[in-house]
Amino acid sequence: MQFSDLAMNLKASEIRELLKLTTMPEVISFAGGLPAPELFPTEQLKKVDDAILTKDGRAALQYGTTEGYDPLRKQIAARMKQAFMVDCNIDNITITSGSQQGLSMLAQIFINPGDVVLVESPTYLGAINAFKLCKPEFVEVPTDEKGVIPEELEKILAKYGDRVRMMYVIPEFQNPTGITWPVERRKAFMDIVNRYDFPVLEDDPYGELRYDGDKVPSLKSMDTKGNIIFLGSFSKILMPGLRIAWMVADPVIIDKVVKLKQAVDLQASSFGQRQTSYYIDMFDLDEHVAKIKALYKKRRDLMCESMKQYFPEGITFTYPEGGLFTWVTLPEGMDAKELMPKVLAKNVAYVPGGPFYPHGGHANHFRLNYSNMPEDRIVEGIKRLADVLKEELAK
Amino acid sequence: MQFSDLAMNLKASEIRELLKLTTMPEVISFAGGLPAPELFPTEQLKKVDDAILTKDGRAALQYGTTEGYDPLRKQIAARMKQAFMVDCNIDNITITSGSQQGLSMLAQIFINPGDVVLVESPTYLGAINAFKLCKPEFVEVPTDEKGVIPEELEKILAKYGDRVRMMYVIPEFQNPTGITWPVERRKAFMDIVNRYDFPVLEDDPYGELRYDGDKVPSLKSMDTKGNIIFLGSFSKILMPGLRIAWMVADPVIIDKVVKLKQAVDLQASSFGQRQTSYYIDMFDLDEHVAKIKALYKKRRDLMCESMKQYFPEGITFTYPEGGLFTWVTLPEGMDAKELMPKVLAKNVAYVPGGPFYPHGGHANHFRLNYSNMPEDRIVEGIKRLADVLKEELAK
Repeated sequence: MQFSDLAMNLKASEIRELLKLTTMPEVISFAGGLPAPELFPTEQLKKVDDAILTKDGRAALQYGTTEGYDPLRKQIAARMKQAFMVDCNIDNITITSGSQQGLSMLAQIFINPGDVVLVESPTYLGAINAFKLCKPEFVEVPTDEKGVIPEELEKILAKYGDRVRMMYVIPEFQNPTGITWPVERRKAFMDIVNRYDFPVLEDDPYGELRYDGDKVPSLKSMDTKGNIIFLGSFSKILMPGLRIAWMVADPVIIDKVVKLKQAVDLQASSFGQRQTSYYIDMFDLDEHVAKIKALYKKRRDLMCESMKQYFPEGITFTYPEGGLFTWVTLPEGMDAKELMPKVLAKNVAYVPGGPFYPHGGHANHFRLNYSNMPEDRIVEGIKRLADVLKEELAK
Repeated sequence: MQFSDLAMNLKASEIRELLKLTTMPEVISFAGGLPAPELFPTEQLKKVDDAILTKDGRAALQYGTTEGYDPLRKQIAARMKQAFMVDCNIDNITITSGSQQGLSMLAQIFINPGDVVLVESPTYLGAINAFKLCKPEFVEVPTDEKGVIPEELEKILAKYGDRVRMMYVIPEFQNPTGITWPVERRKAFMDIVNRYDFPVLEDDPYGELRYDGDKVPSLKSMDTKGNIIFLGSFSKILMPGLRIAWMVADPVIIDKVVKLKQAVDLQASSFGQRQTSYYIDMFDLDEHVAKIKALYKKRRDLMCESMKQYFPEGITFTYPEGGLFTWVTLPEGMDAKELMPKVLAKNVAYVPGGPFYPHGGHANHFRLNYSNMPEDRIVEGIKRLADVLKEELAK
């Protein structure tokens, strides 16, 4: 069997392989980016599904348009205004089968083999996997505790010039670091983007999950030239299992994405789109988001306090203002991937840091998720992790 | 905004643009490949959704594995045996977001730019659109009323040799022609495939919808070397709006597809997969398929009888033993696409034949769907179409 070059270069995403571990009930998993399932509105969804099947069952089970279910696109336009300070209408919006599909399609739309894609260093490993299919050259833009460093970005743009075809950023509660860009940083960034004119993917799956401090305006809300493509998702504020996300962009870009989506999978689920839309109509999504925030804030605090209490000296971690992740830094020379077997032997899981860098290295980091495990298991898991780390440091 | 070469070459699928027309209630549409929505099991699905949300709501709304929901994969393995005479297990099966995604991913797995893809002439236009993204050279294999002509296939294989990396066929109630390959033709085909050893995509979305004659063994059931990749779908036997389809192939191929799917959209809907699986457990899918067959048989008969009665002489059409489509041939020199405005002016729609040929031409054909319109509209639509055709022929 002869495969294509693309197929020969495919590797399994380490995060997906790790997700398989999380299905074993004995594992305390800080690995995936899974929401807390106990908050899924299962009882409300019974009413939602009954209403859909009673009022609109035939259309809900039939083929639909590639652009998406219009009432949902309208609700998203309203939410973009309310939650992200973005003015847009349905011509700026298309529905995708999860934000992962948005990442994958946008790479196809913008990248020829060898083109330069800029990413934060580190960045979301699922995005690296999606972009890789288009064979770009990845250039990592250095970051600090406030996100992308404008001066470093400008140096890279000056060096690579027109070869830069796309940049990917997560300015809000970044995956994996949990870092949020302050408003000054965003202004400086937008100034550069507007001068150099290149498309920027602003991935914002956690933007509504802020536990401290004030909302910072999204890049898209500052966008005057149509360079920002915003990716939003219901996965973290409602549920991921329906695979419903959205993209906000200039209609010229939306048009390309819709044509591509016709070829790759025709459309997102007609039923899943209506489940999302009816839920928003029949219940209070803001109230639901408030419940999620209350729980995750508690879990973030507990995880950070437990790390402070139990982790040995010399190990640092980020204190995220929102989102799902904290990023742990081990002393130089330690390798989080090599530690994995010892950690897994204690039935604890994390994601080692290396895969979040397109060019590898940076082995002395790992990512922890605090949204998915109940409180007692967070404390227990951090204790077990601390034991492994203490043993290693004592060597 | 600089787009990729792929983006610059994207065209909207004519079939999807036509689907938009079908949403206007006054149009008698024979254009899309839409199932009859009045048969969608909406009341049963209320019970299905209630059972899912009661018994397994958290997992149904959470992320799941890329391979798919295991109970559904097991049910599909059983159905492959029962309906398609194929022995397989869940390691041979993965769930896709509609068969369109299967087509798109398989092209990525097998095709480098410039590689040769063989297709029936004519073939499904959605497959042409999916494959095009990988920039193949399309070679059309001549067909007759029994499907692909083995001698012609062999000539082409001798000519293109190793450059042939994939073939795409619909041996059962073909889209667009409605033609089914008899068993002798299939044996001759498999003999060639086994001698030349290349992957063949057997797309079989309508295989269970046979109205006359006996079931013919699927190519996959005759496959001794793992060359056949079978694509099945719930879209036509249950409902398309959930976007749940499957692929049966050698585990080596499934492994590549799963890794690719991780990058392109992570997974099919957790909820949609359970809706399909619970439906099969709680109700009788065979009984449901029997209802669909009874209705579509009536509609096929009515459409074919109406064409016989009202169409002017010199126009021929296929009489399909199953599936959703009949293929109409106008006298040479007539152009079905040019006729479209006149047909649409009478609020009738079909798909002109040209787009079903990767290299175009063949303008004197159009495809008619008979599954979606109620009986009275089928007769009325064919009458209106006959009027336009008579007028044209009288010129």
